[in-house]
Amino acid sequence: LKKIAISVGDLNGIGIELILKNHHLISNKCEPIYCIDKDMLEICANRLNVDIPEGMILENINSDSFDIQPGTISIKSGIYSFKSFQKAIHLADTKNVDYILTMPIHKKAWSDASILYKGHTDYLSFVYNKKAIMMLGCEEMYVALFSDHIPLKDVSNTIKYEDLKEFLLLFYENINEKNIAVLGVNPHSGDNGVIGFEDNIIQQAIDDVNKILGENTFVGTIVPDVAFTKSNRQKYKYFIAMYHDQGLGPLKTLYFDESINVSLGLPIKRVSVDHGCAFDIAYNNNIVKNSKSYLNALEYVLYR
Amino acid sequence: LKKIAISVGDLNGIGIELILKNHHLISNKCEPIYCIDKDMLEICANRLNVDIPEGMILENINSDSFDIQPGTISIKSGIYSFKSFQKAIHLADTKNVDYILTMPIHKKAWSDASILYKGHTDYLSFVYNKKAIMMLGCEEMYVALFSDHIPLKDVSNTIKYEDLKEFLLLFYENINEKNIAVLGVNPHSGDNGVIGFEDNIIQQAIDDVNKILGENTFVGTIVPDVAFTKSNRQKYKYFIAMYHDQGLGPLKTLYFDESINVSLGLPIKRVSVDHGCAFDIAYNNNIVKNSKSYLNALEYVLYR
Repeated sequence: LKKIAISVGDLNGIGIELILKNHHLISNKCEPIYCIDKDMLEICANRLNVDIPEGMILENINSDSFDIQPGTISIKSGIYSFKSFQKAIHLADTKNVDYILTMPIHKKAWSDASILYKGHTDYLSFVYNKKAIMMLGCEEMYVALFSDHIPLKDVSNTIKYEDLKEFLLLFYENINEKNIAVLGVNPHSGDNGVIGFEDNIIQQAIDDVNKILGENTFVGTIVPDVAFTKSNRQKYKYFIAMYHDQGLGPLKTLYFDESINVSLGLPIKRVSVDHGCAFDIAYNNNIVKNSKSYLNALEYVLYR
Repeated sequence: LKKIAISVGDLNGIGIELILKNHHLISNKCEPIYCIDKDMLEICANRLNVDIPEGMILENINSDSFDIQPGTISIKSGIYSFKSFQKAIHLADTKNVDYILTMPIHKKAWSDASILYKGHTDYLSFVYNKKAIMMLGCEEMYVALFSDHIPLKDVSNTIKYEDLKEFLLLFYENINEKNIAVLGVNPHSGDNGVIGFEDNIIQQAIDDVNKILGENTFVGTIVPDVAFTKSNRQKYKYFIAMYHDQGLGPLKTLYFDESINVSLGLPIKRVSVDHGCAFDIAYNNNIVKNSKSYLNALEYVLYR
């Protein structure tokens, strides 16, 4: 069975409920190792009014326990979620697990706790001193983002030939699939140069990477607004979007509940649910319908 | 019956086939007036090997006929499509019709023919000296674009308080609906100011316009990548996107075949199919499955 370190995320959110209620189900398929102290887990379980399932393997955080305040931004909870994440990374670094799976943290709780990193991906980039490729999706389609959490006005400046080439090659190395769709960046992919010039740079990068690989692995540039029509989704499973909302808008329109988040190109393998800590429904014991992303994240791990 | 002037679009494309094959169907519901000369219509019908339906009302263009070359960019065809469009506008200006419906033109054919306007909307803006609001969609959802055919790098610069206010008020005036969703512009609508500042400007415009209208007509800013999830589509029918692909990506992902294009805020009323001239399938007599957008455009006219 694959070993998976699971960081618990912000304990004032829905992560711990997902963990407790799905442990029995997932422990048949993998060996989950939960990065949480026993006393903290007990506090959460009490609050949820559920028993702790038998056979849960815990990895100590050795951090102070705190009272759960469902749906509340808290420094203590922010720190705990960060330490849990660090522990999961450590387990992967030391080859004690094959994969890490992260539950959602709250970005404001991290920043209130003076944690300098914006989120999981940002911290991973710091730890390994390289930028991870963020890929989201589900078995029906995956979207990798060439740029992610930056203001829209900065997107076009990221379109640089060498960076694109490097990105495409790294993506191919990690995914090893053919027939990957690459989107343009301007409306109509620039309409033959009439609307911006950046699409020509993307085209050049695609052509040259295909030459390096010796086959037409990457297809594009695909006109962004029609990239995800049904007929294109039948042709392609992997899409590369130039920016956050270009790829995630269509993805979440189609597969909001099912999607997961994968970090590619790092020394360790990480997968995550594709939702936040859902403070509005935390600890209301009504999570079953929202387990899709968590279970899909596990499925992804099992078959890679 | 409503009178509708129909411009024929680029005759080397699929527009004329849509017209000929659907005339019988639509003439029960409205009074279509086709902006084409009889001899030119005969050339097209011959090429398609179909009879000209009885009772078609034509409006003379008085332009030279030319040989049809299916799927070919041609100056003559570009000029003809422009003149047909001008005639339709004239009929609306002189109150001879209630609405105009435009078949797709070919932008390169226009530019080859030294027609200075990029397309229909651009010409309409010139004629009436005001910018039309471009709205696309179908009965399930409509998306209006605050900015349209501009390079992505220029989008953030268009986010100006006064322009947004004016746009929202004009949109409301034309649509007269409540509960209109307005998207932010940056990822996560700026994440409380962490990713760009423009979303605050949009928020201010929304709040102030709602105050002017005396009710919360506009809702937002809505986080762009989750704006079109199923639950939001149940809440809202009209969406305002800040830029082309933000709105049209999700729309075309869901409703590629069904969508139409409406010009709002002009002295005349115009609707259009939401596809190009489809040179790849022109004159292959296989258009039936592609009539959705045309027929939906007509339905839109009939019920407004």
